[in-house]
Amino acid sequence: MQAANIRIVLIHTSHSGNIGAVARAMKNMCLSELYLVQPRQFPSEEATARASGADDVLQKAVVCESLDQALQGCRVIYGSSARLRTIRWPQVDPRQAAEQMAAESENGSVAILFGREHSGLTNDELERCHYLLNIPANSDYSSLNIAAACQVVAYELMMASQLEPVASDIGEVIELATADEVEGLHQHLQETLIRLEYLNPQQPKQLMRRLRRLYHKAHLEKIEVNILRGILTATQKWIDKCSGDKKSVN
Amino acid sequence: MQAANIRIVLIHTSHSGNIGAVARAMKNMCLSELYLVQPRQFPSEEATARASGADDVLQKAVVCESLDQALQGCRVIYGSSARLRTIRWPQVDPRQAAEQMAAESENGSVAILFGREHSGLTNDELERCHYLLNIPANSDYSSLNIAAACQVVAYELMMASQLEPVASDIGEVIELATADEVEGLHQHLQETLIRLEYLNPQQPKQLMRRLRRLYHKAHLEKIEVNILRGILTATQKWIDKCSGDKKSVN
Repeated sequence: MQAANIRIVLIHTSHSGNIGAVARAMKNMCLSELYLVQPRQFPSEEATARASGADDVLQKAVVCESLDQALQGCRVIYGSSARLRTIRWPQVDPRQAAEQMAAESENGSVAILFGREHSGLTNDELERCHYLLNIPANSDYSSLNIAAACQVVAYELMMASQLEPVASDIGEVIELATADEVEGLHQHLQETLIRLEYLNPQQPKQLMRRLRRLYHKAHLEKIEVNILRGILTATQKWIDKCSGDKKSVN
Repeated sequence: MQAANIRIVLIHTSHSGNIGAVARAMKNMCLSELYLVQPRQFPSEEATARASGADDVLQKAVVCESLDQALQGCRVIYGSSARLRTIRWPQVDPRQAAEQMAAESENGSVAILFGREHSGLTNDELERCHYLLNIPANSDYSSLNIAAACQVVAYELMMASQLEPVASDIGEVIELATADEVEGLHQHLQETLIRLEYLNPQQPKQLMRRLRRLYHKAHLEKIEVNILRGILTATQKWIDKCSGDKKSVN
């Protein structure tokens, strides 16, 4: 496991004490990469107090204006969520997630998103994730404090790092696409589907969400993103041509 | 597992916020039996705030004058400790402890002790324990916040209680596509790519093989095959339209 390749991303955290508690939980479990997307207040005394000696993690925390910025370069993204969603999404528990992350971190960056204290991750944020990370909990009281949730995940990573690494080497180096490359694909796809008049630009959500989920499941490689975008470009060229021809007819 | 037979015992807790955070962690993981040995302050507003809805656990918490009182009736006792002791003591990690506790709780009461924030358990207290419960951690920074430590142990108890993995069913039945449906998709895709002039019909193998592998990885569902074929049909309609327009021009 490469702990330096595992990012903890906190989104819109309201209570700065939680940021400190997360930093402590991370350092306890040998993690150090903390990204904060628009925290209400940071740095803060409360965060430093609750970090209780994990000041180094706070000091190197990266404050970001957007989730895109926090995810730059990440190849696999997990979204921590207590709620079951109406749309099914690939779901893992912390143990499964940690095993996957420990292996994946050998190849590149992985991110785990923790949402707002009171409302968690939005559907848009969740859709950026390959997996919904669900911590088994009391069905009547399932929402953990974010530092507690982070502690559980970090603990499982610590446990996973102590296992004998499973060699899954088949000799071929697979270069997974980064989150921003995949995002570029989805933008390109949406634009093309609108031009094809297959997607209603007023109601893009449901269809695009299904397509995101489909391509997340495939863990796209760079070369695959290139192929898919090549097809989209070819499709748009036809539409351009056709529009052009029509103009020449009219 | 009998959760009612599992006691969380906090000894001489200084920060009442931690008592609230422990109550929340317990309730999240279906535990309810909280014993407090000489807490500095309890009840307290800070505890209630951090309990964040786990008020019932706080309300029924038993405040004790001595450890003896808190352990009355318990048959197996675990002491949470970050420090390695000079005296060798049977030691378990949270996973091992949880498996043992889940089984033992069927027969009688079990207790887990958490010591003072700054100094943990005394040697006298540790000697009351059958096992030292050690959470694997950063050797340079091994002391977890007590609520975080309690969360990890409670989480492992939750995992142990779910030996039969609970299906994460949220009502949607997944209908995977059959092999012939996937084959139909690939035929449709190949035909479309040739018409788009993206695929050389003399040399289709390499590209089509990559696309097959991509969609295999996704384990396509029926509805996903339908969406992808819908896009291909829309694409072919544009090509038809364009070809038609061209014909009318020529």
